[in-house]
Amino acid sequence: MNPQEILKAHLCKTINLTEEEFNYVFSHFKPKRFKKGEKIITEGDIVHDEYFVLSGCLKTYYINDNQKMFILQFAMCTWWASDYDALYNGARAIINLDCITDTEVLCLSDVDREKLCTEFDQIAYFFRWRSNRGYVASQKRLLSFMNNDAKYRYEELLSMYPQLYNLVPKHLIAAYLGVSRETLSRLYNE
Amino acid sequence: MNPQEILKAHLCKTINLTEEEFNYVFSHFKPKRFKKGEKIITEGDIVHDEYFVLSGCLKTYYINDNQKMFILQFAMCTWWASDYDALYNGARAIINLDCITDTEVLCLSDVDREKLCTEFDQIAYFFRWRSNRGYVASQKRLLSFMNNDAKYRYEELLSMYPQLYNLVPKHLIAAYLGVSRETLSRLYNE
Repeated sequence: MNPQEILKAHLCKTINLTEEEFNYVFSHFKPKRFKKGEKIITEGDIVHDEYFVLSGCLKTYYINDNQKMFILQFAMCTWWASDYDALYNGARAIINLDCITDTEVLCLSDVDREKLCTEFDQIAYFFRWRSNRGYVASQKRLLSFMNNDAKYRYEELLSMYPQLYNLVPKHLIAAYLGVSRETLSRLYNE
Repeated sequence: MNPQEILKAHLCKTINLTEEEFNYVFSHFKPKRFKKGEKIITEGDIVHDEYFVLSGCLKTYYINDNQKMFILQFAMCTWWASDYDALYNGARAIINLDCITDTEVLCLSDVDREKLCTEFDQIAYFFRWRSNRGYVASQKRLLSFMNNDAKYRYEELLSMYPQLYNLVPKHLIAAYLGVSRETLSRLYNE
């Protein structure tokens, strides 16, 4: 599928847009390509855009004072990523966004999203639905983090997203689970 | 302030409604009073409503197979609470919602929220904004959970919400931080 078809299929799972409406909406998205390892958002940035992934894989992560990395999110095809606190609230970015693999995205600015939400009730509905989903997923992950051990969370992650197994290096999966690489290796071998 | 004034002040921080519009919106909220300890949502329930707190304090929590309690959220005056996975997605509740103190709420059904969102762009905007905020807060809490020890998270919680100190028993604050009551007592005495 081309970028237009991927976005259209994604939106039309939730809302109805005519061909003409979709084409107008699509004209606000800017295609971009990034290389493996390239940084899209760096801690301290002002953030204007969010990114809809077409191919490849992104990660959002935080580096603490001891240089330990915590991964908040992976983002694969049809996932969205940004520093949403910075994007919504005009705060400086506290997280980083970069590319685990070569990645193709569609980039939507905060200004254009709000414009489209004003112009189309269906688009406003889509973004409300998306935020609701993100909130629920985030609460579930928090609960799993509090309640389950790393082995359980590792199996949960790979059963939900089996494609991560091949796409994402093991030390990054460890940083997502909040365990050391050694602990993760032990889980692999059990 | 009476219930009407509390909700109006809350909505009008984010959106503009005329007196007439607000009165119409308000007519969809049902006032309810619950006693300390009373259950509003029980695991397994079908959930139709969300709750806007006017006075008192609620908690949402999960009980695992070993009967250990994990608190997802406290909800005080002007906070919203429900099992949002159950509410948005029609799933059975996996969490519980009950009253830490006698509590007064305004209850809004899923059907009425969607009706109001269709009737007023401003209300749709409000709920999108609220979900965005919830998502960002949830991501921050997850990050804090991964990155900070219990002492740091305890101080962070009480500096953000000093009123919790008097409103919420210490064993519930421990269940929110994901530590034992004994660990929390030690932090108190340090």
